[in-house]
Amino acid sequence: MLGARGGWRALRRCASLPRAVRLRVREALGAREAAEAVRVQGWVRSVRSQKEVLFLHINDGSSLESLQVVADPSLEKRDLTFGSAVEVQGKLVKSPHRMQNMELQAETIHVVGPCDIWSFPLKMKERHPLEYVRQFPHLRCRNNTLGALLRIRSEATAGIHSFFQDNGYVHIHTPIITSNDCEGAGELFQIETSREAKESAENTHFFNVPAFLTVSGQLHLEVMAGAFTHVFTFGPTFRAENSQSRRHLAEFYMVEAELSFTENLQDIMQVMEDLFKTVTSTVLSKCPRDVELFHKYIAPAQKRSIAGKSDITHKLAWQEAPKQIPRPLLLFLQWGCDLQTEHEKYLVKHCGEVPVFVVNYPYDLKPFYMRDNEDGPEHTVAAVDLLVPGVGELCGGSLREERLPFLESRLQRLGLTDAYQWYLDLRKFGSVPHGGFGMGFERYLQYILGVDNIKDVIPFPRFSHSCLL
Amino acid sequence: MLGARGGWRALRRCASLPRAVRLRVREALGAREAAEAVRVQGWVRSVRSQKEVLFLHINDGSSLESLQVVADPSLEKRDLTFGSAVEVQGKLVKSPHRMQNMELQAETIHVVGPCDIWSFPLKMKERHPLEYVRQFPHLRCRNNTLGALLRIRSEATAGIHSFFQDNGYVHIHTPIITSNDCEGAGELFQIETSREAKESAENTHFFNVPAFLTVSGQLHLEVMAGAFTHVFTFGPTFRAENSQSRRHLAEFYMVEAELSFTENLQDIMQVMEDLFKTVTSTVLSKCPRDVELFHKYIAPAQKRSIAGKSDITHKLAWQEAPKQIPRPLLLFLQWGCDLQTEHEKYLVKHCGEVPVFVVNYPYDLKPFYMRDNEDGPEHTVAAVDLLVPGVGELCGGSLREERLPFLESRLQRLGLTDAYQWYLDLRKFGSVPHGGFGMGFERYLQYILGVDNIKDVIPFPRFSHSCLL
Repeated sequence: MLGARGGWRALRRCASLPRAVRLRVREALGAREAAEAVRVQGWVRSVRSQKEVLFLHINDGSSLESLQVVADPSLEKRDLTFGSAVEVQGKLVKSPHRMQNMELQAETIHVVGPCDIWSFPLKMKERHPLEYVRQFPHLRCRNNTLGALLRIRSEATAGIHSFFQDNGYVHIHTPIITSNDCEGAGELFQIETSREAKESAENTHFFNVPAFLTVSGQLHLEVMAGAFTHVFTFGPTFRAENSQSRRHLAEFYMVEAELSFTENLQDIMQVMEDLFKTVTSTVLSKCPRDVELFHKYIAPAQKRSIAGKSDITHKLAWQEAPKQIPRPLLLFLQWGCDLQTEHEKYLVKHCGEVPVFVVNYPYDLKPFYMRDNEDGPEHTVAAVDLLVPGVGELCGGSLREERLPFLESRLQRLGLTDAYQWYLDLRKFGSVPHGGFGMGFERYLQYILGVDNIKDVIPFPRFSHSCLL
Repeated sequence: MLGARGGWRALRRCASLPRAVRLRVREALGAREAAEAVRVQGWVRSVRSQKEVLFLHINDGSSLESLQVVADPSLEKRDLTFGSAVEVQGKLVKSPHRMQNMELQAETIHVVGPCDIWSFPLKMKERHPLEYVRQFPHLRCRNNTLGALLRIRSEATAGIHSFFQDNGYVHIHTPIITSNDCEGAGELFQIETSREAKESAENTHFFNVPAFLTVSGQLHLEVMAGAFTHVFTFGPTFRAENSQSRRHLAEFYMVEAELSFTENLQDIMQVMEDLFKTVTSTVLSKCPRDVELFHKYIAPAQKRSIAGKSDITHKLAWQEAPKQIPRPLLLFLQWGCDLQTEHEKYLVKHCGEVPVFVVNYPYDLKPFYMRDNEDGPEHTVAAVDLLVPGVGELCGGSLREERLPFLESRLQRLGLTDAYQWYLDLRKFGSVPHGGFGMGFERYLQYILGVDNIKDVIPFPRFSHSCLL
């Protein structure tokens, strides 16, 4: 099982297994020690040459921990440096050190690809700030922090797919290119063929009509919820916002769900909460060491956030003692202006730095598809936002207006009746009460890990004035 | 468990469970028959009114099968029609019919949303051709065939994520917007903000540089393979090809994987094959009835394809008797022109209408990043395509040129040295032999289901002159 190729990957994975299993693996390895000849491949994270012995740490990216290699000093070579790729043959043995399960006694060391350490921007054993490594989008994944981040992102992605599949949702690839503009927002990217862009020929669109990058899959999900009852999507969305803030990207990922036969905002909030808890507990169990790195070095003692020790307690509070914290705190908004970042901060602080649901927004602030609460003449709609400490809006959702006359009159006033004829159709043929929400995936990662800048939780950030690689 | 809300969804899921489990559920239901009061929600698929009894079939999209409702004729209403949304309260009982496990004896029937059957383009019990329903992108998912297709697509999506996660790959969201042009192909979509598009202001790009929709995540995956060894991505890719063919879309999905420390094309082919087999067997076990629909009505007796009975045999042959079929048939291409559709067809036919790997393409035909085989002066590169009956190219992959001098001289000749400085960097800092491949997700679905037109295997097809919704 641990022989020859791929041996180390198998071994490394043990690190993320429950302690009991890990111990069993260690025992098994101990017993077969002499026979355990393996070939290990990876990149050198440290070289320490002593008189009698050469120590290497090598890493293949499958976990934060590196494997210690112990070798005879005669095996040292000039190009065996930090960052070089190596292949080591040797025997896996129990380590005499408390900090690691085992180490590799090298018989041969082959440098597969050298690394010019003078021009390599990452340095051995240096804790580079996130701002520094951000300058090197093609190399920063080799940094410990970004490596941990991307493993967590990968596990969270898998966790999101599992959550919805396990709960009977059908996954839909909502389109990236669309002729719709869901939110009515002006901040859109438009698409043309390279040739059109050069000729700026207004009347020869590739798709015959102007086409844009999607800002939300919601309307398309509503189509699908009319057939599959529960549907979800998880893909890229876009905003051409001229902002370099730590909270905005031009390209980011959104998880969106839509539920038919849903009459209550509470049901939508329940799915948001279940999604958050399930995915977070997946991440915590799948990559504890990676998460620990963030809670230790990136957001230490940041009590207001889910990062640090407090978040674990906090998560438990959600799960085990829901009455101890004022959640869901249902605020009926009385003012007529939209929530700004400062309002969000105030609300979250007011509630004791915990996640807060805000419901029932003023009618005029929200898009045409949100359901009129009929608590007054066009007074409020059944909308909900989930605000979290440090990040602000994490999720936004609503019940959708399923009643044809309400929707018709609203679209008519906006002059959108023709453009949304297909959307009105959905209310003519077996319309049902329904609702849904979207969660910003990068903001989710920022929140659970306490990462301040959204550019540090996505592999290749795109924002105004920057599209590297 | 089966009480009140969501009862039917739980019940419907039973249909996809192994027979033994289904039987146990049936027994349990039988025993508790009298107490089994449930509320079921869905859309009416058929109404049949007899003198003594009213039969309904209702469906909530969780499976192809509908639930039979038996009611007193007094419960019939004028708006209880095909396509309407209903909520039925009643008792679940064992069905006297052999074809179904159980039926619902209705106590009340509430029409949640009526359906104007005269303007509704789908008709009761009619088998609409795929070309017909394609005209109604907002309603076609309520058609049996498209419903089955999208459930299969959802399961295949989950299967792809599981396959890679289970094999230790890290998932990467490669960027959609990029300043690179991976293949050097001219058929790109360019992105501008809506304002730029109107003003056609050449020198005020949102990202400072011209930006395009990705045609492949490969180069970005190579970045990540240098840190995580094994990585994959599964997302949308784009071609501004002016084609309305049954094989091309402007927006389609691609699964891509990249493997470090890989020196052999055979290893890449093995991953392609494992991926194909694992995902296909997931789909077959998760939605057997949905797949059956295609093999029965859409591609009956289409022996050359994996659809119909033959494909199952064929799949088994791959798994169980790999020596019986001439695969992998490694063709060393001697001619200097690229493979056209007709060549692909010939090769597949020549090999007995089975999937065929074609390897080692002429050097000049392939992009700059493919690895020189050094079997002559710039003679061939280590590329591989997987051709399948009926569809053509399903996968394409290669070893990548990891040797700095080879890559440098090639980029220099193309005048691309400056643009790809970051890509050359990857060869300076711990470069390793590596390779990878991409699989067209829609073509995969076309192939396993025998669907002729690619527009019928994606929720919202985008192609030249068409971007509906």
